[in-house]
Amino acid sequence: MSLPSELSDRLRGILGTRLSEIAADRDHHAQSESFHRSAPPDAVCWPDSAEEVAAILSACNDARVPVIAWGTGTSLEGHALPLRGGISLDLSRMDRVEEIRAADMQATVQPGVTREALNTELRATGLFFPVDPGANASLGGMAATRASGTTAVRYGTMRDNVLALQVVLADGRIIRTGTRAAKSSAGYDLTGLFVGSEGTLGVITELTLRLHGQPEEVAAAVCAFDSLDHAVECVSATIQSGIPMARIEFVDAASARAFNLHSGSAMPEQPHLMIEFHGSPNAVREDAARFGEIAAEFGAQGFDWATTAEDRARLWRMRHGAYHACLALRPGASGLITDVCVPMSHLPAAVHAAAADIAAEGLIGPILGHVGDGNFHSLLLVDPANADEVAAAKRIATRMAERALAVGGTISGEHGIGVGKRGLMGAQHGEGWELMGQIKAALDPHDILNPGKLVPDRN
Amino acid sequence: MSLPSELSDRLRGILGTRLSEIAADRDHHAQSESFHRSAPPDAVCWPDSAEEVAAILSACNDARVPVIAWGTGTSLEGHALPLRGGISLDLSRMDRVEEIRAADMQATVQPGVTREALNTELRATGLFFPVDPGANASLGGMAATRASGTTAVRYGTMRDNVLALQVVLADGRIIRTGTRAAKSSAGYDLTGLFVGSEGTLGVITELTLRLHGQPEEVAAAVCAFDSLDHAVECVSATIQSGIPMARIEFVDAASARAFNLHSGSAMPEQPHLMIEFHGSPNAVREDAARFGEIAAEFGAQGFDWATTAEDRARLWRMRHGAYHACLALRPGASGLITDVCVPMSHLPAAVHAAAADIAAEGLIGPILGHVGDGNFHSLLLVDPANADEVAAAKRIATRMAERALAVGGTISGEHGIGVGKRGLMGAQHGEGWELMGQIKAALDPHDILNPGKLVPDRN
Ligand SMILES: Cc1cc2nc3c(=O)[nH]c(=O)nc-3n(C[C@H](O)[C@H](O)[C@H](O)COP(=O)(O)OP(=O)(O)OC[C@H]3O[C@@H](n4cnc5c(N)ncnc54)[C@H](O)[C@@H]3O)c2cc1C
Ligand SMILES: Cc1cc2nc3c(=O)[nH]c(=O)nc-3n(C[C@H](O)[C@H](O)[C@H](O)COP(=O)(O)OP(=O)(O)OC[C@H]3O[C@@H](n4cnc5c(N)ncnc54)[C@H](O)[C@@H]3O)c2cc1C
Repeated sequence: MSLPSELSDRLRGILGTRLSEIAADRDHHAQSESFHRSAPPDAVCWPDSAEEVAAILSACNDARVPVIAWGTGTSLEGHALPLRGGISLDLSRMDRVEEIRAADMQATVQPGVTREALNTELRATGLFFPVDPGANASLGGMAATRASGTTAVRYGTMRDNVLALQVVLADGRIIRTGTRAAKSSAGYDLTGLFVGSEGTLGVITELTLRLHGQPEEVAAAVCAFDSLDHAVECVSATIQSGIPMARIEFVDAASARAFNLHSGSAMPEQPHLMIEFHGSPNAVREDAARFGEIAAEFGAQGFDWATTAEDRARLWRMRHGAYHACLALRPGASGLITDVCVPMSHLPAAVHAAAADIAAEGLIGPILGHVGDGNFHSLLLVDPANADEVAAAKRIATRMAERALAVGGTISGEHGIGVGKRGLMGAQHGEGWELMGQIKAALDPHDILNPGKLVPDRN
Repeated sequence: MSLPSELSDRLRGILGTRLSEIAADRDHHAQSESFHRSAPPDAVCWPDSAEEVAAILSACNDARVPVIAWGTGTSLEGHALPLRGGISLDLSRMDRVEEIRAADMQATVQPGVTREALNTELRATGLFFPVDPGANASLGGMAATRASGTTAVRYGTMRDNVLALQVVLADGRIIRTGTRAAKSSAGYDLTGLFVGSEGTLGVITELTLRLHGQPEEVAAAVCAFDSLDHAVECVSATIQSGIPMARIEFVDAASARAFNLHSGSAMPEQPHLMIEFHGSPNAVREDAARFGEIAAEFGAQGFDWATTAEDRARLWRMRHGAYHACLALRPGASGLITDVCVPMSHLPAAVHAAAADIAAEGLIGPILGHVGDGNFHSLLLVDPANADEVAAAKRIATRMAERALAVGGTISGEHGIGVGKRGLMGAQHGEGWELMGQIKAALDPHDILNPGKLVPDRN
């Protein structure tokens, strides 16, 4: 497809050479990190300001042409794929850290700033932004998917760390949501509505983020367990004991093997926990000791403390590299990654059942996750050309989601819905899913914003 | 006014004697804790179940008759007043704690359960529900106003502590929002949309709440400062130092005087901070010592530690009684209570300017607040029959709100909008306020849910 020429002219008037209709640019915006693919968008735009985004949306709304926001394209459910053509709105040029207000522990940034870029800017302030999906994603994309990562157990998710937004609506109106105050009871929580809306309700053009003090002391460790059940039961017990964990990550034996091959580590091929404590030196010492006692009850062995900042950086780089390390277990494979999250007491059974199911279907599917929140992933390695394998992986993923729903959990703890999980939204939300559709219809009457995602089809 | 007889018959068929059209019941539901008043509703309903709520809403939606949910009627901005007549939907009979899942640190309750009733039920579990407005409000009302209180600085507000809801929509549909998992990225945050919606989008018929472990050790104290500025600057410094406070409350000299008269305390008539620490014994000792050092820099004196549980209960009962203690400073007066919240670095100037303004207008207006969040109140004591005084109080409140907005704060930190703050919504939200109206229109097309509140008038 190609853009209606009138729209193309209008957009070129706004953007000049920052509008591209050439194949290489379009193809790049039809990729995704997982196995989802689509036809390319009709054009790619690189706006520089909220005003330009507003002009683009207004033009596309008039022309009834879809607009799909694009951060860094690292989402895992095909979120940013242009299912119905239209324009890929690439926000990577809007990458300015606009203001750091250290005394208020806040930063205001454009949506294309990545989490690593922000933390680099923050280094000298004694503050940091804690939300850390493994990828170096854009903060706009992270807000749009309600991302989290290893530190959510302590610092919360994007839901908890976005204070205010500037958003461009489908018709080009520019609004502001939220405030710079720590809390507010002044009307509907519009910030919360846009966080997690996956580009279907508006385009985020500015974010005000909550920052946190760099901890005085940090201690991190990894330890091994003789069974998956013992490792996961140890997590449940730790969380219930109220020990403040900054991170508590589970990786199974297959993941440990992947790390060894990919990162040159020498972990026993057993289930592990990777943990971190933040606080004053005394508090960290006390917390670490209490965790050690609990872990010992579950047979933890081979405690390896990362004492220097470099050791810790290496540990978490390894964890953040897990996705690619696991993919490398089967060269040429694509990943279908699951993302359920369950109430803590159901976590051991949920992980156990997932492992058994993967084994029964005969796939390779390392399991790992942010288990302090009850959130775990299995990375199901499939040959995308092998329909049987893809079908088996989808069966496993669906059963995992169904088991999560049966205990009051969610089909997505952090990755979001995109293309891959939309078929399960009705099962999770019932009539609530229709309500999401009503909200979408009220805010985007011509369905131009990332159409075909998240909400039910219009009838 | 009275109900259309067809509707009256239909409701009596659903509720029997739990529908009342007698004056005493109606009048009771036209009161509010502050100076706001309205004509009584046409009838009061006391449903026993979500299904009955659905039947009532469906009937009223057909008849285009307003429905105003009623928790315990303690809101401070006339939230639950039936501005356009209709039905007051009193949820006090739906007061069952349905389930406590201690291992998951969650409780599921009906909306009429009060925070004190819930905490009484929880006592034996080692868990508690932390959100504590001074009044013994209903959990449904607290969710609807996005309430907080003294402990929000540590445990968050209702936004952070409501995991899932059951809601009846205007047309009688019953939906569920949220999950029992610690986090979720599965679509729009409907839970967050209903929390703070003040009965304008749906009626909450069940809440799933996040509980917290009762702290191993608690220490509380009160200390005096020689000036308001020093007390408030001490709060800013404490929060920025990252010391984990469970509570940090400011009360000014007038409030201290009110406590002395009302609670029999013997505080010097000076500004005070009331503080509390939660944690392990070592952590509490360390935090208290660090706070002591900071407070000393600002000239804090007369540290009085509440060492026993009874002493602490007395301290916080006194603080929770502040509203009535301050009202008693001027017998017969009504209170107009302000509720701004500002970024921490602006707090000292904001409190200072408020105090100067109150003095200049010549009103009595004690200042106190949850200053760890940047949230403070002044209780402006007025003779409701004296139009000049009421006008002066409203001028002060408006200027306080304008100053808060000028520094990126909010017109309401926790009380909400109701009748009293609606005139300021446009100033705070701009076009975002119109968007709230669009959402309301999509979910409640006939405007039956608490009409005349929160969103702009329809045109
Ligand atoms: C190796 C690896 C590890 C990962 N680990 C984690 C993890 O631990 N936790 C986690 O949560 N995720 C994780 N992810 C997933 C991914 O990083 C997150 O989903 C991230 O939030 C996506 O950000 P992005 O900038 O790449 O967004 P994109 O993929 O570009 O877009 C995602 C969605 O957001 C929308 N969007 C993007 N920008 C905007 C905007 N400014 N306004 C409105 N909508 C917008 C898009 O339209 C799309 O629907 C991981 C991914 C990889 C590849
Ligand atoms: C002495 C005193 C001290 C206070 N201190 C604080 C404080 O520190 N922090 C604070 O936040 N507030 C405080 N408040 C205000 C008040 O307690 C809160 O606003 C509280 O949340 C109101 O709850 P309620 O059950 O009384 O609700 P109501 O006053 O009955 O109703 C409030 C609003 O919620 C709606 N509503 C009620 N129940 C439902 C439901 N089930 N579904 C949908 N909508 C519903 C009503 O329609 C109305 O719009 C204080 C009040 C007093 C009198």
